[in-house]
Amino acid sequence: MVRARKTRLADVAARAGVSRTTASYILNGRSGEMRLSDDAVARVRAAAVELDYRPNRAARSLRTSQTRTVGLVSDSVASGHFASRMLTGASAAARESDHVLLIGETDGDPLVERLLVEQMLDQGVDGIVYATLRHREVAVPAALRQTRTVLLNCADPASGLPAVVPDEHGGGRRAADLVAGVAGPVVVVGDDHEQGTHAGAMRLAGLEEQLAARGREVADVLRCDWSVAGAREAVTSWWGTGVRNGALVCMNDRVAMGVYQALTAREAAIPGAFAVVSFDGSELATWLTPALTSVALPFAELGATAVRLLLDPPPGASRTVRLEMPVVHGGSVPASAAVTR
Amino acid sequence: MVRARKTRLADVAARAGVSRTTASYILNGRSGEMRLSDDAVARVRAAAVELDYRPNRAARSLRTSQTRTVGLVSDSVASGHFASRMLTGASAAARESDHVLLIGETDGDPLVERLLVEQMLDQGVDGIVYATLRHREVAVPAALRQTRTVLLNCADPASGLPAVVPDEHGGGRRAADLVAGVAGPVVVVGDDHEQGTHAGAMRLAGLEEQLAARGREVADVLRCDWSVAGAREAVTSWWGTGVRNGALVCMNDRVAMGVYQALTAREAAIPGAFAVVSFDGSELATWLTPALTSVALPFAELGATAVRLLLDPPPGASRTVRLEMPVVHGGSVPASAAVTR
Repeated sequence: MVRARKTRLADVAARAGVSRTTASYILNGRSGEMRLSDDAVARVRAAAVELDYRPNRAARSLRTSQTRTVGLVSDSVASGHFASRMLTGASAAARESDHVLLIGETDGDPLVERLLVEQMLDQGVDGIVYATLRHREVAVPAALRQTRTVLLNCADPASGLPAVVPDEHGGGRRAADLVAGVAGPVVVVGDDHEQGTHAGAMRLAGLEEQLAARGREVADVLRCDWSVAGAREAVTSWWGTGVRNGALVCMNDRVAMGVYQALTAREAAIPGAFAVVSFDGSELATWLTPALTSVALPFAELGATAVRLLLDPPPGASRTVRLEMPVVHGGSVPASAAVTR
Repeated sequence: MVRARKTRLADVAARAGVSRTTASYILNGRSGEMRLSDDAVARVRAAAVELDYRPNRAARSLRTSQTRTVGLVSDSVASGHFASRMLTGASAAARESDHVLLIGETDGDPLVERLLVEQMLDQGVDGIVYATLRHREVAVPAALRQTRTVLLNCADPASGLPAVVPDEHGGGRRAADLVAGVAGPVVVVGDDHEQGTHAGAMRLAGLEEQLAARGREVADVLRCDWSVAGAREAVTSWWGTGVRNGALVCMNDRVAMGVYQALTAREAAIPGAFAVVSFDGSELATWLTPALTSVALPFAELGATAVRLLLDPPPGASRTVRLEMPVVHGGSVPASAAVTR
């Protein structure tokens, strides 16, 4: 949301006859760094008063605002699996606070990462969001420990930096509630960890804990990578065990697509014979027939929360914000099966 | 690719005891804009010589380089349909030239767009790539006509700015070659234009032209939006016409997924009864069974080409670069059906 027109830094700069950068330095008390003339300083201050320029809209949060720019450094900007929605959420939250978000992609290269961070700091960003498109642990570059930084979809235990992550463990518990009433065994499809991530282990732990609380258990784990073909093959092999009903809990929506293909090829009805639930809640879940019930990663909300935390940190906040993973209901679980808390 | 360590602007700035911004202004002959002291100018120039600082690695292209930063302004950073790969390609090409790419998302808001462009220009970017995640016509903000700008996946006929776009018409011709030998009618699935884009019309024109050259024609166009559900419903309705073999040319991969669902529900074999070809060449094409033969949008190459064109414009280049759409072969067309040129 962009608010009604108000005096911006550019207006002040234009009236004073200086660049926006110069005006920004002066209004943020940093004119000494630029060796600016006393005359320029006086003109900018006069223009700010005449135009009723108020940079600090959100009081505390923006007190140190310099360029109304937030930087976001990400290992990737396109995972191919919908996670880039996080960047859209971050961008929207920045606009809500009249900031622009500048996004840089490192492709995992530490040197590129350092250059990007330096560039952003040189430009006087108000802070930096450090993001990964897959939920994992990281070690942030040293420069980030000396600036205002929020981690997005990752954690750096050594740095103690605040982080915004999905509550994967809680998501696992929700999946358990969805299938606790299903007849037949509960089978997990997908390895308990994808390369370099912890999402799988956390989802599985939450699932097992909540199933146990319901007097159920995970009967089997079909190990495969988190891909359509991997899951299709895993279920096809498993078909030989003779199980003909139950619940298949898929590590993500691509895995579920492979499960659908394997079951459909064997004329096994979803959800009549097998309930299928998944994680991610991506668009792919809505494309399948029946639509897939999936415990969603709140991509846009993750990105937005990180930017809001950066621009307006609550006092004494907990260092890690875990966002709930909401259930997106499709038709892949019998309506009668879900257990309400 | 990041090259071996060499003297960077930051080294010169550190030795001279000034900020990187200050050093950049001085080395680019813009010290007058900052009212810098003669002493600072002398120190920066001395440091650059002592450290053998050579900013202009790629000769002509970087002659005006100021911050080794390229800006990219996009209407979106996450289309949900894989197009964000363009941004990854752009980012990689910037790294190849020792630049960083800063990406900003406008969400189609002209005010946000102006703020982003102003911010990037204030920061002295070497140029700006103006991108849309769907191929369409645009009207760029006035500021872009006064700076080095390349359009990506869009065209602005009024501005005359150079543009990099996919050759949608050529892609349509390739689809024709893929199905020209198929028995039964050639049927198009998907409207000839998606909201606000021209890709569909261009693909259809190329398809019709090349089919005509092969003595074939489009027998029917099943109009639907470019979605899985839309295509599924369109083919389900069309099934009543009694056609039981032929070629279905889908406007994109999501449309093809819906076509697969409708055909599979009716036990119509792919490619035995129906050949299916599509456009986009997204990951989704590889997830279907059989894998979908799709005329691919070269996402990463589009982004990379735009950045290269920005940093190293060839003399007297044509204003619009059209990139070929290569065929990604799956198993959805009978091997015998494709006609080679």
